[in-house]
Amino acid sequence: MLRQVVQHLEIGTRGRGFYEFTDEVAGVLAKSGLKTGVATVHLQHTSASLLIQENADPEVRRDLERLFSRLAPDGDPIFKHTAEGDDDMPAHVRTALTAVNLSIPFEGGELALGTWQGLYLWEHRRQAHRRRVTVHLVGE
Amino acid sequence: MLRQVVQHLEIGTRGRGFYEFTDEVAGVLAKSGLKTGVATVHLQHTSASLLIQENADPEVRRDLERLFSRLAPDGDPIFKHTAEGDDDMPAHVRTALTAVNLSIPFEGGELALGTWQGLYLWEHRRQAHRRRVTVHLVGE
Amino acid sequence: MLRQVVQHLEIGTRGRGFYEFTDEVAGVLAKSGLKTGVATVHLQHTSASLLIQENADPEVRRDLERLFSRLAPDGDPIFKHTAEGDDDMPAHVRTALTAVNLSIPFEGGELALGTWQGLYLWEHRRQAHRRRVTVHLVGE
Repeated sequence: MLRQVVQHLEIGTRGRGFYEFTDEVAGVLAKSGLKTGVATVHLQHTSASLLIQENADPEVRRDLERLFSRLAPDGDPIFKHTAEGDDDMPAHVRTALTAVNLSIPFEGGELALGTWQGLYLWEHRRQAHRRRVTVHLVGE
Repeated sequence: MLRQVVQHLEIGTRGRGFYEFTDEVAGVLAKSGLKTGVATVHLQHTSASLLIQENADPEVRRDLERLFSRLAPDGDPIFKHTAEGDDDMPAHVRTALTAVNLSIPFEGGELALGTWQGLYLWEHRRQAHRRRVTVHLVGE
Repeated sequence: MLRQVVQHLEIGTRGRGFYEFTDEVAGVLAKSGLKTGVATVHLQHTSASLLIQENADPEVRRDLERLFSRLAPDGDPIFKHTAEGDDDMPAHVRTALTAVNLSIPFEGGELALGTWQGLYLWEHRRQAHRRRVTVHLVGE
Protein backbone atom coordinates (compact mmCIF):
# COMPACT_ATOMS: atom_id res chain seq x y z
CA MET A 1 0.00 0.00 0.00
CA LEU A 2 1.31 3.42 -1.02
CA ARG A 3 2.08 5.95 1.68
CA GLN A 4 3.82 9.32 1.84
CA VAL A 5 6.35 11.17 3.99
CA VAL A 6 7.24 14.88 4.13
CA GLN A 7 10.44 16.14 5.72
CA HIS A 8 12.19 19.50 5.89
CA LEU A 9 15.88 20.17 5.42
CA GLU A 10 17.81 23.32 6.15
CA ILE A 11 21.03 23.79 4.23
CA GLY A 12 23.55 26.41 5.27
CA THR A 13 25.56 28.00 2.47
CA ARG A 14 28.76 30.03 2.67
CA GLY A 15 27.95 32.10 -0.38
CA ARG A 16 27.91 31.38 -4.10
CA GLY A 17 28.70 27.81 -5.02
CA PHE A 18 27.49 24.23 -5.03
CA TYR A 19 26.46 22.35 -1.89
CA GLU A 20 25.82 18.65 -2.40
CA PHE A 21 22.97 17.22 -0.34
CA THR A 22 22.42 13.84 -1.97
CA ASP A 23 23.17 12.18 1.38
CA GLU A 24 20.61 14.27 3.25
CA VAL A 25 17.84 13.23 0.85
CA ALA A 26 19.05 9.62 0.92
CA GLY A 27 18.85 9.86 4.72
CA VAL A 28 15.22 10.99 4.61
CA LEU A 29 14.51 8.08 2.29
CA ALA A 30 16.28 5.54 4.50
CA LYS A 31 14.43 6.76 7.59
CA SER A 32 11.07 6.53 5.80
CA GLY A 33 11.44 2.82 5.20
CA LEU A 34 10.06 3.28 1.67
CA LYS A 35 11.72 1.14 -1.00
CA THR A 36 10.09 2.11 -4.32
CA GLY A 37 8.52 5.42 -5.26
CA VAL A 38 9.28 8.99 -6.22
CA ALA A 39 10.94 11.82 -4.29
CA THR A 40 10.04 15.46 -4.92
CA VAL A 41 12.56 18.00 -3.66
CA HIS A 42 11.49 21.65 -3.55
CA LEU A 43 13.62 24.67 -2.64
CA GLN A 44 11.67 27.54 -1.08
CA HIS A 45 13.77 30.37 -2.52
CA THR A 46 14.16 32.41 -5.72
CA SER A 47 17.88 33.24 -5.59
CA ALA A 48 19.28 29.71 -5.28
CA SER A 49 18.40 26.58 -7.19
CA LEU A 50 18.52 22.79 -7.31
CA LEU A 51 20.69 21.00 -9.82
CA ILE A 52 21.65 17.43 -10.58
CA GLN A 53 25.19 17.55 -11.91
CA GLU A 54 28.47 15.68 -12.13
CA ASN A 55 29.83 14.79 -8.70
CA ALA A 56 33.36 13.85 -9.84
CA ASP A 57 35.67 16.64 -11.05
CA PRO A 58 34.91 19.84 -9.04
CA GLU A 59 36.19 21.83 -12.02
CA VAL A 60 32.84 21.10 -13.70
CA ARG A 61 31.06 23.15 -11.05
CA ARG A 62 33.61 25.98 -11.34
CA ASP A 63 33.10 26.00 -15.11
CA LEU A 64 29.33 26.16 -14.59
CA GLU A 65 29.87 29.20 -12.34
CA ARG A 66 32.02 30.88 -14.98
CA LEU A 67 29.55 30.22 -17.78
CA PHE A 68 26.50 31.38 -15.83
CA SER A 69 28.44 34.48 -14.73
CA ARG A 70 28.95 35.27 -18.40
CA LEU A 71 25.24 34.82 -19.20
CA ALA A 72 24.19 37.11 -16.34
CA PRO A 73 27.16 38.98 -14.79
CA ASP A 74 26.94 40.63 -11.40
CA GLY A 75 26.30 44.32 -11.93
CA ASP A 76 25.04 43.83 -15.49
CA PRO A 77 23.69 47.29 -16.56
CA ILE A 78 20.65 45.55 -18.11
CA PHE A 79 19.21 45.08 -14.60
CA LYS A 80 17.07 47.66 -12.79
CA HIS A 81 16.23 45.58 -9.70
CA THR A 82 19.48 46.42 -7.90
CA ALA A 83 18.38 47.50 -4.41
CA GLU A 84 19.26 44.12 -2.88
CA GLY A 85 22.79 44.06 -4.32
CA ASP A 86 24.39 43.62 -7.71
CA ASP A 87 24.33 39.80 -7.34
CA ASP A 88 20.60 39.61 -6.58
CA MET A 89 19.13 39.88 -10.07
CA PRO A 90 21.80 37.53 -11.55
CA ALA A 91 20.72 35.10 -8.80
CA HIS A 92 17.09 35.29 -9.96
CA VAL A 93 18.20 34.71 -13.56
CA ARG A 94 20.31 31.67 -12.63
CA THR A 95 17.34 30.30 -10.69
CA ALA A 96 15.07 30.80 -13.73
CA LEU A 97 17.63 29.07 -15.97
CA THR A 98 17.83 26.04 -13.67
CA ALA A 99 15.07 24.79 -11.31
CA VAL A 100 13.73 24.93 -7.79
CA ASN A 101 12.15 21.49 -7.83
CA LEU A 102 13.23 18.03 -8.92
CA SER A 103 11.48 14.65 -9.06
CA ILE A 104 13.61 11.56 -8.65
CA PRO A 105 12.31 7.97 -8.63
CA PHE A 106 13.76 5.52 -6.10
CA GLU A 107 14.08 1.74 -6.06
CA GLY A 108 15.50 -0.70 -3.55
CA GLY A 109 15.52 2.16 -1.06
CA GLU A 110 17.95 4.16 -3.25
CA LEU A 111 17.48 7.25 -5.41
CA ALA A 112 17.65 6.30 -9.10
CA LEU A 113 20.58 8.65 -9.73
CA GLY A 114 23.23 7.80 -12.29
CA THR A 115 26.80 6.99 -11.23
CA TRP A 116 28.00 10.57 -11.76
CA GLN A 117 24.86 12.38 -10.63
CA GLY A 118 24.91 14.37 -7.42
CA LEU A 119 22.08 16.48 -6.04
CA TYR A 120 23.20 20.05 -5.40
CA LEU A 121 21.85 23.21 -3.91
CA TRP A 122 23.36 25.95 -6.04
CA GLU A 123 23.67 29.13 -3.99
CA HIS A 124 23.65 32.17 -6.27
CA ARG A 125 24.09 34.95 -3.71
CA ARG A 126 27.58 35.91 -2.55
CA GLN A 127 26.56 36.02 1.11
CA ALA A 128 25.91 33.01 3.32
CA HIS A 129 22.27 31.91 3.60
CA ARG A 130 20.16 29.31 5.29
CA ARG A 131 18.05 27.60 2.62
CA ARG A 132 14.91 25.56 3.25
CA VAL A 133 14.10 22.45 1.26
CA THR A 134 10.93 20.31 1.42
CA VAL A 135 11.30 16.61 0.60
CA HIS A 136 8.15 14.66 -0.27
CA LEU A 137 8.22 10.90 -0.78
CA VAL A 138 5.41 8.72 -2.07
CA GLY A 139 5.88 4.99 -2.46
CA GLU A 140 5.84 1.71 -0.59
CA MET B 1 -5.46 6.62 2.33
CA LEU B 2 -3.85 8.35 -0.65
CA ARG B 3 -6.05 9.60 -3.46
CA GLN B 4 -5.60 11.79 -6.52
CA VAL B 5 -7.31 14.66 -8.30
CA VAL B 6 -6.83 16.07 -11.81
CA GLN B 7 -8.08 19.50 -12.84
CA HIS B 8 -7.64 21.68 -15.90
CA LEU B 9 -7.00 25.41 -15.94
CA GLU B 10 -7.12 27.79 -18.85
CA ILE B 11 -5.09 30.95 -18.52
CA GLY B 12 -5.61 33.86 -20.88
CA THR B 13 -2.54 35.94 -21.67
CA ARG B 14 -2.29 39.40 -23.21
CA GLY B 15 1.04 38.73 -24.87
CA ARG B 16 4.58 38.41 -23.56
CA GLY B 17 4.89 38.66 -19.79
CA PHE B 18 4.27 36.95 -16.48
CA TYR B 19 0.83 35.82 -15.30
CA GLU B 20 0.69 34.66 -11.70
CA PHE B 21 -1.65 31.72 -11.08
CA THR B 22 -0.63 30.64 -7.58
CA ASP B 23 -4.19 31.30 -6.40
CA GLU B 24 -5.74 29.15 -9.13
CA VAL B 25 -3.61 26.16 -8.12
CA ALA B 26 -4.27 26.85 -4.44
CA GLY B 27 -7.97 26.87 -5.31
CA VAL B 28 -7.76 23.43 -6.94
CA LEU B 29 -5.96 22.21 -3.83
CA ALA B 30 -8.55 23.73 -1.45
CA LYS B 31 -11.42 22.20 -3.42
CA SER B 32 -9.76 18.76 -3.40
CA GLY B 33 -9.81 18.59 0.39
CA LEU B 34 -6.29 17.11 0.32
CA LYS B 35 -3.99 18.31 3.09
CA THR B 36 -0.59 16.68 2.44
CA GLY B 37 0.85 15.54 -0.87
CA VAL B 38 2.44 16.76 -4.07
CA ALA B 39 1.06 18.88 -6.91
CA THR B 40 2.27 18.47 -10.49
CA VAL B 41 1.51 21.38 -12.80
CA HIS B 42 1.98 20.84 -16.52
CA LEU B 43 1.66 23.41 -19.32
CA GLN B 44 0.58 21.96 -22.67
CA HIS B 45 2.53 24.38 -24.88
CA THR B 46 6.02 24.90 -26.29
CA SER B 47 6.14 28.68 -26.58
CA ALA B 48 5.25 29.58 -22.99
CA SER B 49 6.60 28.18 -19.75
CA LEU B 50 6.06 27.77 -16.02
CA LEU B 51 8.30 29.53 -13.53
CA ILE B 52 8.47 29.95 -9.79
CA GLN B 53 9.89 33.40 -9.17
CA GLU B 54 9.86 36.38 -6.84
CA ASN B 55 6.36 37.77 -6.33
CA ALA B 56 7.40 41.07 -4.70
CA ASP B 57 9.14 43.69 -6.89
CA PRO B 58 7.67 43.49 -10.46
CA GLU B 59 10.99 44.89 -11.73
CA VAL B 60 12.42 41.38 -11.21
CA ARG B 61 10.12 40.04 -13.93
CA ARG B 62 10.95 42.93 -16.26
CA ASP B 63 14.66 42.25 -15.74
CA LEU B 64 14.08 38.57 -16.53
CA GLU B 65 12.39 39.63 -19.79
CA ARG B 66 15.32 41.86 -20.67
CA LEU B 67 17.92 39.20 -19.91
CA PHE B 68 16.12 36.44 -21.83
CA SER B 69 15.62 38.84 -24.75
CA ARG B 70 19.37 39.28 -24.84
CA LEU B 71 20.01 35.51 -24.81
CA ALA B 72 17.55 34.94 -27.67
CA PRO B 73 16.39 38.21 -29.30
CA ASP B 74 13.33 38.38 -31.51
CA GLY B 75 14.47 38.23 -35.12
CA ASP B 76 17.87 36.77 -34.24
CA PRO B 77 19.46 35.86 -37.63
CA ILE B 78 20.62 32.52 -36.13
CA PHE B 79 17.04 31.21 -36.45
CA LYS B 80 15.63 29.57 -39.59
CA HIS B 81 12.21 28.58 -38.17
CA THR B 82 10.68 32.00 -38.83
CA ALA B 83 7.40 31.24 -40.62
CA GLU B 84 5.32 31.72 -37.45
CA GLY B 85 6.83 35.12 -36.63
CA ASP B 86 10.14 36.47 -35.40
CA ASP B 87 9.13 35.90 -31.76
CA ASP B 88 8.26 32.21 -32.23
CA MET B 89 11.71 30.64 -32.13
CA PRO B 90 12.82 32.87 -29.22
CA ALA B 91 9.68 31.60 -27.45
CA HIS B 92 10.78 27.98 -27.98
CA VAL B 93 14.25 28.83 -26.66
CA ARG B 94 12.88 30.53 -23.54
CA THR B 95 10.65 27.49 -22.95
CA ALA B 96 13.66 25.17 -23.29
CA LEU B 97 15.64 27.34 -20.84
CA THR B 98 12.88 27.23 -18.23
CA ALA B 99 10.28 24.45 -17.81
CA VAL B 100 6.78 23.31 -18.71
CA ASN B 101 6.20 21.28 -15.59
CA LEU B 102 6.72 21.80 -11.88
CA SER B 103 6.24 19.59 -8.81
CA ILE B 104 5.37 21.28 -5.55
CA PRO B 105 4.71 19.49 -2.25
CA PHE B 106 1.84 20.70 -0.07
CA GLU B 107 1.15 20.49 3.67
CA GLY B 108 -1.70 21.68 5.84
CA GLY B 109 -3.66 22.22 2.65
CA GLU B 110 -1.10 24.79 1.41
CA LEU B 111 1.53 24.66 -1.32
CA ALA B 112 5.02 24.51 0.24
CA LEU B 113 6.11 27.70 -1.51
CA GLY B 114 8.56 30.08 0.13
CA THR B 115 7.46 33.54 1.26
CA TRP B 116 8.62 35.19 -1.96
CA GLN B 117 7.74 32.41 -4.38
CA GLY B 118 4.90 32.89 -6.84
CA LEU B 119 3.84 30.46 -9.55
CA TYR B 120 3.84 32.10 -12.97
CA LEU B 121 2.86 31.29 -16.50
CA TRP B 122 5.46 33.06 -18.61
CA GLU B 123 3.99 33.91 -22.00
CA HIS B 124 6.76 34.22 -24.58
CA ARG B 125 4.70 35.16 -27.67
CA ARG B 126 3.81 38.80 -28.28
CA GLN B 127 0.19 38.00 -29.13
CA ALA B 128 -2.51 37.03 -26.64
CA HIS B 129 -3.04 33.29 -26.16
CA ARG B 130 -5.23 30.92 -24.18
CA ARG B 131 -2.91 28.47 -22.41
CA ARG B 132 -3.95 25.11 -20.98
CA VAL B 133 -2.54 23.76 -17.71
CA THR B 134 -3.14 20.35 -16.14
CA VAL B 135 -2.95 20.16 -12.34
CA HIS B 136 -2.49 16.71 -10.76
CA LEU B 137 -2.63 16.24 -6.99
CA VAL B 138 -1.80 13.10 -5.06
CA GLY B 139 -2.03 13.01 -1.29
CA GLU B 140 -4.43 12.59 1.59
CA MET C 1 -6.77 2.26 -5.33
CA LEU C 2 -3.48 3.95 -6.28
CA ARG C 3 -0.57 1.81 -7.36
CA GLN C 4 2.83 2.42 -8.95
CA VAL C 5 5.03 1.01 -11.69
CA VAL C 6 8.74 1.54 -12.40
CA GLN C 7 10.31 0.71 -15.76
CA HIS C 8 13.70 1.31 -17.34
CA LEU C 9 14.38 2.48 -20.87
CA GLU C 10 17.66 2.55 -22.73
CA ILE C 11 17.92 5.02 -25.58
CA GLY C 12 20.73 4.79 -28.10
CA THR C 13 21.92 8.09 -29.54
CA ARG C 14 24.03 8.73 -32.65
CA GLY C 15 25.65 11.86 -31.23
CA ARG C 16 24.37 15.37 -30.61
CA GLY C 17 20.73 15.89 -31.42
CA PHE C 18 17.15 15.22 -30.39
CA TYR C 19 15.71 11.72 -29.99
CA GLU C 20 11.97 11.59 -29.45
CA PHE C 21 10.80 8.89 -27.04
CA THR C 22 7.19 9.92 -26.40
CA ASP C 23 6.05 6.54 -27.78
CA GLU C 24 8.34 4.57 -25.46
CA VAL C 25 6.90 6.31 -22.39
CA ALA C 26 3.36 5.93 -23.78
CA GLY C 27 4.15 2.22 -24.19
CA VAL C 28 5.17 1.89 -20.54
CA LEU C 29 1.94 3.64 -19.60
CA ALA C 30 -0.22 1.39 -21.84
CA LYS C 31 1.41 -1.75 -20.45
CA SER C 32 0.84 -0.58 -16.87
CA GLY C 33 -2.92 -0.47 -17.33
CA LEU C 34 -3.02 2.79 -15.35
CA LYS C 35 -5.49 5.38 -16.65
CA THR C 36 -5.05 8.47 -14.45
CA GLY C 37 -1.95 9.58 -12.59
CA VAL C 38 1.46 11.16 -13.00
CA ALA C 39 4.58 9.96 -14.82
CA THR C 40 8.07 10.93 -13.65
CA VAL C 41 10.82 10.48 -16.22
CA HIS C 42 14.42 10.69 -15.00
CA LEU C 43 17.59 10.59 -17.11
CA GLN C 44 20.62 9.14 -15.29
CA HIS C 45 23.27 11.31 -16.99
CA THR C 46 24.83 14.77 -16.75
CA SER C 47 25.76 15.40 -20.39
CA ALA C 48 22.35 14.83 -21.98
CA SER C 49 18.94 16.12 -20.96
CA LEU C 50 15.18 15.73 -21.25
CA LEU C 51 13.10 18.29 -23.05
CA ILE C 52 9.48 18.70 -24.05
CA GLN C 53 9.48 20.62 -27.33
CA GLU C 54 7.69 21.12 -30.61
CA ASN C 55 7.35 17.87 -32.56
CA ALA C 56 6.31 19.47 -35.88
CA ASP C 57 8.95 21.43 -37.83
CA PRO C 58 12.41 19.79 -37.28
CA GLU C 59 13.98 23.20 -37.93
CA VAL C 60 12.91 24.14 -34.39
CA ARG C 61 15.31 21.55 -32.99
CA ARG C 62 18.11 22.66 -35.30
CA ASP C 63 17.58 26.26 -34.18
CA LEU C 64 17.73 25.13 -30.54
CA GLU C 65 21.08 23.45 -31.29
CA ARG C 66 22.39 26.61 -32.89
CA LEU C 67 21.26 28.85 -30.03
CA PHE C 68 22.65 26.58 -27.29
CA SER C 69 25.91 26.29 -29.24
CA ARG C 70 26.17 30.05 -29.09
CA LEU C 71 25.50 30.14 -25.33
CA ALA C 72 28.18 27.49 -24.66
CA PRO C 73 30.31 26.73 -27.74
CA ASP C 74 32.44 23.62 -27.99
CA GLY C 75 36.00 24.53 -27.08
CA ASP C 76 34.97 27.74 -25.31
CA PRO C 77 38.18 29.03 -23.63
CA ILE C 78 36.16 29.79 -20.45
CA PHE C 79 36.17 26.05 -19.64
CA LYS C 80 38.94 24.27 -17.70
CA HIS C 81 37.31 20.83 -17.49
CA THR C 82 38.49 19.75 -20.94
CA ALA C 83 40.04 16.30 -20.38
CA GLU C 84 36.93 14.49 -21.68
CA GLY C 85 36.76 16.49 -24.92
CA ASP C 86 35.88 20.02 -25.95
CA ASP C 87 32.16 19.11 -26.14
CA ASP C 88 31.97 17.72 -22.60
CA MET C 89 31.69 20.91 -20.56
CA PRO C 90 29.22 22.46 -23.06
CA ALA C 91 27.19 19.27 -22.58
CA HIS C 92 27.13 19.82 -18.80
CA VAL C 93 26.05 23.44 -19.33
CA ARG C 94 23.24 22.46 -21.70
CA THR C 95 22.08 19.88 -19.17
CA ALA C 96 22.09 22.51 -16.40
CA LEU C 97 20.11 24.89 -18.64
CA THR C 98 17.44 22.29 -19.37
CA ALA C 99 16.50 19.32 -17.11
CA VAL C 100 17.11 15.67 -16.35
CA ASN C 101 13.67 14.97 -14.96
CA LEU C 102 10.12 15.73 -16.00
CA SER C 103 6.70 15.10 -14.42
CA ILE C 104 3.75 14.63 -16.74
CA PRO C 105 0.17 13.89 -15.65
CA PHE C 106 -1.84 11.32 -17.60
CA GLU C 107 -5.58 10.80 -18.11
CA GLY C 108 -7.60 8.25 -20.05
CA GLY C 109 -4.39 6.24 -20.35
CA GLU C 110 -2.66 9.05 -22.26
CA LEU C 111 0.06 11.52 -21.31
CA ALA C 112 -1.42 15.02 -20.89
CA LEU C 113 0.88 16.47 -23.57
CA GLY C 114 -0.26 19.29 -25.80
CA THR C 115 -0.83 18.75 -29.53
CA TRP C 116 2.66 19.97 -30.44
CA GLN C 117 4.55 18.59 -27.44
CA GLY C 118 6.98 15.73 -27.93
CA LEU C 119 9.22 14.21 -25.26
CA TYR C 120 12.87 14.27 -26.31
CA LEU C 121 16.17 13.03 -25.07
CA TRP C 122 18.61 15.74 -26.07
CA GLU C 123 22.07 14.24 -26.56
CA HIS C 124 24.74 16.88 -26.02
CA ARG C 125 27.88 14.84 -26.75
CA ARG C 126 29.09 14.44 -30.33
CA GLN C 127 29.70 10.70 -29.94
CA ALA C 128 27.01 8.02 -29.80
CA HIS C 129 25.90 6.99 -26.30
CA ARG C 130 23.51 4.60 -24.64
CA ARG C 131 21.37 6.62 -22.19
CA ARG C 132 19.38 5.20 -19.30
CA VAL C 133 15.98 6.57 -18.31
CA THR C 134 13.81 5.58 -15.33
CA VAL C 135 10.05 5.92 -15.74
CA HIS C 136 7.91 5.97 -12.58
CA LEU C 137 4.12 5.95 -12.76
CA VAL C 138 1.71 6.41 -9.90
CA GLY C 139 -2.03 6.35 -10.46
CA GLU C 140 -5.01 4.07 -10.88
